[in-house]
Amino acid sequence: MKSYERLCDKVRKISLVNDTASVLSWDQETYMPTEGLAYRAKQIAWLAGNSHNLGTCDDFRKALENAENESLDDTQSANIRETRNQFDRSSRLPQDLVKKASESATFAKAAWAEARQESDFSMFAPHLERLLDIARAKADLWGYEDEPYDAMVEGYERGTKTKEIANIFDSVTNQLTNTAQAAVDKSASISSDILEGECPIEKQQLFNREIAEDIGFEFNKGRIDTTTHPFCVGLGPCDTRLTTRYLLNDFTSSVFGVLHEAGHGLYEQGLPETHHGLPSGNAVSLGIHESQSRLWENHIGRSRPFWTKWLPRAQELFPHLAAIDLDTFLGAVNRAEKSFIRVEADEATYDLHILLRFEIERAMMNQEIQVAEIPDIWNQKFESLFGTRPPDDANGCLQDIHWAMGGLGYFATYTLGNFNAAQLYNCAMKDTHISSAFERADYLPMLEWMREKIHSKGSVLLPQELMLDATGEKTNPQHHIDHLNERFV
Amino acid sequence: MKSYERLCDKVRKISLVNDTASVLSWDQETYMPTEGLAYRAKQIAWLAGNSHNLGTCDDFRKALENAENESLDDTQSANIRETRNQFDRSSRLPQDLVKKASESATFAKAAWAEARQESDFSMFAPHLERLLDIARAKADLWGYEDEPYDAMVEGYERGTKTKEIANIFDSVTNQLTNTAQAAVDKSASISSDILEGECPIEKQQLFNREIAEDIGFEFNKGRIDTTTHPFCVGLGPCDTRLTTRYLLNDFTSSVFGVLHEAGHGLYEQGLPETHHGLPSGNAVSLGIHESQSRLWENHIGRSRPFWTKWLPRAQELFPHLAAIDLDTFLGAVNRAEKSFIRVEADEATYDLHILLRFEIERAMMNQEIQVAEIPDIWNQKFESLFGTRPPDDANGCLQDIHWAMGGLGYFATYTLGNFNAAQLYNCAMKDTHISSAFERADYLPMLEWMREKIHSKGSVLLPQELMLDATGEKTNPQHHIDHLNERFV
Repeated sequence: MKSYERLCDKVRKISLVNDTASVLSWDQETYMPTEGLAYRAKQIAWLAGNSHNLGTCDDFRKALENAENESLDDTQSANIRETRNQFDRSSRLPQDLVKKASESATFAKAAWAEARQESDFSMFAPHLERLLDIARAKADLWGYEDEPYDAMVEGYERGTKTKEIANIFDSVTNQLTNTAQAAVDKSASISSDILEGECPIEKQQLFNREIAEDIGFEFNKGRIDTTTHPFCVGLGPCDTRLTTRYLLNDFTSSVFGVLHEAGHGLYEQGLPETHHGLPSGNAVSLGIHESQSRLWENHIGRSRPFWTKWLPRAQELFPHLAAIDLDTFLGAVNRAEKSFIRVEADEATYDLHILLRFEIERAMMNQEIQVAEIPDIWNQKFESLFGTRPPDDANGCLQDIHWAMGGLGYFATYTLGNFNAAQLYNCAMKDTHISSAFERADYLPMLEWMREKIHSKGSVLLPQELMLDATGEKTNPQHHIDHLNERFV
Repeated sequence: MKSYERLCDKVRKISLVNDTASVLSWDQETYMPTEGLAYRAKQIAWLAGNSHNLGTCDDFRKALENAENESLDDTQSANIRETRNQFDRSSRLPQDLVKKASESATFAKAAWAEARQESDFSMFAPHLERLLDIARAKADLWGYEDEPYDAMVEGYERGTKTKEIANIFDSVTNQLTNTAQAAVDKSASISSDILEGECPIEKQQLFNREIAEDIGFEFNKGRIDTTTHPFCVGLGPCDTRLTTRYLLNDFTSSVFGVLHEAGHGLYEQGLPETHHGLPSGNAVSLGIHESQSRLWENHIGRSRPFWTKWLPRAQELFPHLAAIDLDTFLGAVNRAEKSFIRVEADEATYDLHILLRFEIERAMMNQEIQVAEIPDIWNQKFESLFGTRPPDDANGCLQDIHWAMGGLGYFATYTLGNFNAAQLYNCAMKDTHISSAFERADYLPMLEWMREKIHSKGSVLLPQELMLDATGEKTNPQHHIDHLNERFV
């Protein structure tokens, strides 16, 4: 056996262990009884330790070095490149730091939940201090060119620098703010009350499943379950799990949630099965992953052709909608409103929430601001972007779980995802075969384009190389701005 | 740290790995999409290999030997005794035999499913030959006193010899046959059609949950899900999963299924939490486990006081039962009928199915009969017990999955469980506090008795020691015969 193949076996083994942990985490978020938590944490920690050992041991290092000396094709070279990156990142962290990070996050999550409940930032502050210390220690060990935050971003968006993201964000802050304001103003006369009425969960589930199947999600290789914080996770080459939650008086919450997660799921299902467990079979970054979810949720799911097809079915299932016409419905599901809470934000105001977080997080990480200052800085920046101040920290800097999880560097990928979604959508729609099918609410040609340009590529190209390869340019936010203006203004 | 404690850490680690495999198996049987199977099998095999290595490595052997030389109390000694037993059984099997057994079972299960479908024993026969060869090889490695079948039984019913089971079974075969016949004759005039009517799954789930909660199953430490072949599995010290299936026109199928599995679940939830992962925190045998499921399913679940309490609620939920009176209902759920299929058998005829299997399996294992002879022998014996011959092998020797799983030695524990259930029930009911509460459908005193006498003991005593300790006698089938005669004749 070639050294490369021997290495691949090892890499696949590590993925198998990580996928096993994912099954346990999925169960924890969906079905596990509450009292199961403590033991489950031990199981996941054991798997994480096992995975870390397999991926940093001497045997692995040698296999990697041997493979690096072989002559390989592009895909194989990409697998070596990504495996080396992962090996370096993992092996540079001493085991006690990994353990400390995991334990600190466990306590921080519990403290955060309580702090948010009480809207008392001081309860969370010492935990955030500790997590920031750990993150900076990690960044120092991983290394970075310009600033510590780079090392964090690298974990979610390979090959992308903080400065590049900042440049993109800076270039559109004014436009995003103006568009959001215009959208909100225009929406003032629209009410979404008309959507409300009895929506039994079984009927929502039926509707969501019909839609997910129609856009190509394969239920022999996946499912939809219920959770508090919806997510999508791939548990294996033919096992992709979507989750959602239901409002009993408004089916649109779960249907857009499912469209979003199914977008992630279509990406997972479109990855090359035979490469599962290798970088060439893995999704490349969160910013690309989010492009797929936002494409299906917003560009497709909130479009006129989509509801031309699906509104009649919704009216069958939810009789309170019987009298609503398509224009009114589209107005209601595309209504812009300023909200304090990111996860409730509409498409037009969403990115402002991300700009705020990116700026604060970067400054926190780079020690330009102190933890104690965060609430004030958050509220000031929020006011400058939204023209109003959060009533309390629960509606401000305590709303998201990401920091408590140690997930610094994550937020920017949401907006990168929006930018990438618009860009990929525009590029695909230049093909008249795709755009004419789109008008008939037939999305198979669109899916095939994404399969070819994005899904099938795994992590062979870096995110920005992938965008360039697929669309002819790197991430360009103008497509998203144009889309928002067209839809909302 | 004492050697004993070091050993316990190792034993608990192995349990943690096995419990992780149980989560994956539970998911496979409940929610996993069909195409996930191949990868899931790899994950479970990896965990099984890991568990086997941890439990047979030199390091483990040394820890065990060191602990064996320490002075220990009764519980600690029992843990050493059971750990030694497990270590010897595991380490006597070479890895390639374990692997061959696992692979053969995988292929045998697939072949069995097809053979049953086609009702063609010849499709399954070569697989059964192979599994028997493997079983005999295992038995030779494990060792036995009287006959190879002993070594298989030992895996399910620690410390119990084939001969002992055979003696018990032989002593009651005539009585069981006569009682079954009398029960069937008496039931000839009863119809269970009156139970049939619309039973929406949500209402069945609500009813089952109310009942499971009422008898003490804790839903913060467990749940009920849907599957094809119902089972109960403990996934951790505070995580016990029941499963059931639903008939849309008869709620009694799922409610007795849930009572059965909740009986297993109450045992799991009653095991001492702080001993989880050690023998002292594990259920002791299948024959004791089945005593708990049958106690709640039959002695309690099919009794007059139970339905005096619950029939009105059933009538609320399932209006087609509104006109039925308690006597008619009790008659219908205690109707005896000869059936070809074990899992559809009522309480009065069930054990005959087991006597048949025990005798054939023992002869197969001990090479007294050939695989090719099995269909004929099955049908002859069936006729001598039931007075009629199965129409085909699908309704005969191909009906159960146990042999295809390599589960030789398992069947006898079903009837041992029935015997133990009646004996424990009788003994508990001698306490007037328990029996008077029973008449009010209050089962907490009964549960407390089981907790004290059975659940809390884990595997500290061997099964027959436990029966003796709890009831003053070893397994005595007469209690069960008396119960059947009282209920059915």
